[in-house]
Amino acid sequence: MTMSRAMEIRGRIIGDGREPLICTPLVARTRDELFPELDVVLEKRPDLIEWRADFYAGLEDVAQVCELSRRLAARAGAIPLIFTIRSTREGGQPVPLGDEQVADLCVAVCETGSMGLIDFEMSAPRGQLERVRAAARSSGTRLILSYHNFNETPGDEALYAKFAEARELGGDVAKVAVMPRDVDDVLTLLGATHRASRTLAMPLISMSMGAYGVLSRVAGWMFGSTVTFAVGRASSAPGQVPIEELRAMLDTLQRACPGK
Amino acid sequence: MTMSRAMEIRGRIIGDGREPLICTPLVARTRDELFPELDVVLEKRPDLIEWRADFYAGLEDVAQVCELSRRLAARAGAIPLIFTIRSTREGGQPVPLGDEQVADLCVAVCETGSMGLIDFEMSAPRGQLERVRAAARSSGTRLILSYHNFNETPGDEALYAKFAEARELGGDVAKVAVMPRDVDDVLTLLGATHRASRTLAMPLISMSMGAYGVLSRVAGWMFGSTVTFAVGRASSAPGQVPIEELRAMLDTLQRACPGK
Repeated sequence: MTMSRAMEIRGRIIGDGREPLICTPLVARTRDELFPELDVVLEKRPDLIEWRADFYAGLEDVAQVCELSRRLAARAGAIPLIFTIRSTREGGQPVPLGDEQVADLCVAVCETGSMGLIDFEMSAPRGQLERVRAAARSSGTRLILSYHNFNETPGDEALYAKFAEARELGGDVAKVAVMPRDVDDVLTLLGATHRASRTLAMPLISMSMGAYGVLSRVAGWMFGSTVTFAVGRASSAPGQVPIEELRAMLDTLQRACPGK
Repeated sequence: MTMSRAMEIRGRIIGDGREPLICTPLVARTRDELFPELDVVLEKRPDLIEWRADFYAGLEDVAQVCELSRRLAARAGAIPLIFTIRSTREGGQPVPLGDEQVADLCVAVCETGSMGLIDFEMSAPRGQLERVRAAARSSGTRLILSYHNFNETPGDEALYAKFAEARELGGDVAKVAVMPRDVDDVLTLLGATHRASRTLAMPLISMSMGAYGVLSRVAGWMFGSTVTFAVGRASSAPGQVPIEELRAMLDTLQRACPGK
């Protein structure tokens, strides 16, 4: 059986212990688009909202990004935000910052205390990761250490090793997102997630992307993935389905499989 | 990629080539219950209807069972029927017939020419199986050779061997239904189905039963299972979900994964 690893932020259990948590991304390019997008997303009552800040066109202005973080969090109320600058190496948008500046911005955003979680790629240089981790800890921000592979699905051992690496590097949450080339790759991702969920004492997030991977988005919770991403207003990765449809499928599956 | 193995009966492709086909069971105990159950099921527009005749209390009367078969088929119109007497060894109801008499009844029902398919367990003695196979062939009835295990999920090789055995024994369709003890067993069943679908030139039906197995009922088609069973009026095996809910989930998954 999968051990549940409820996600807790500043003493509060997200989603009242229900799983999976549904996270919807914000992918606005401008300030003018960001808050209307948030309002659309909030109406859909996600459990988490990820600000995919790599989509945002004004990252050079650290003070403004910090201010936006505070304002987004204030408007989102009880729904925790994840701050994410996904690198182009791992499927993100081009940003006008170097890697050190990305780490600096992540540190600054952590220090606002407005974000529930921050996503940082575990492939980053160790020094950058340690700075972000320290800022996350001192600010009470949960650190998601993530690994994305848009080309393929590594084998079971390699996937397990990524979850374990997130733990070793001091992450609070491990995230693994990979691209299947065949439906069998979806089974590999689910199996590795289940194995990791039985041995690592931390919440896990995993998904297989693209068309085949939709199965992992609706059923990953059965294998120990705590969070699934769904479209609020627009998708941030291939294979995400609209939150209403995801929720309907989860309702059916969870009634059929209440033991999980 | 999975090769599609459309199911064809008397020259007609069932479900116009759409997959998965949705099959709903009839589990009435009496004549008085059987036709009202059929009417309820017909309203839900399944692609196939399985008469689980082991639930029916009057199997001793061969002539009557043959007459019921004809009447059910006439009322079902274009929707093909599967005739099944599931043994208690493989999860069925107790019946007042010995194994030879079951085979005799299956032969007689085939000879009515009313059934689109007949399900026969591949564990049956070879002589019985050959008699039923001959009657199926001469009457144009498709032969499903089936294997059920309500205790556990055999390993990948053993599952694959069951699909292959159905082929070797001259079945037109191979069916494998097994019970998972853990969610990983569901992955094993899906993986073995996919492997078999790439090598065996016949339609396959597979499912993992019970609560965990619901995943296979909604996603088995991605791995090469041509038919999924859903509840019309009442379930015939653990883990079946109502046809309306199954159809809604299939719609969402198939829009997300149109390539399959």
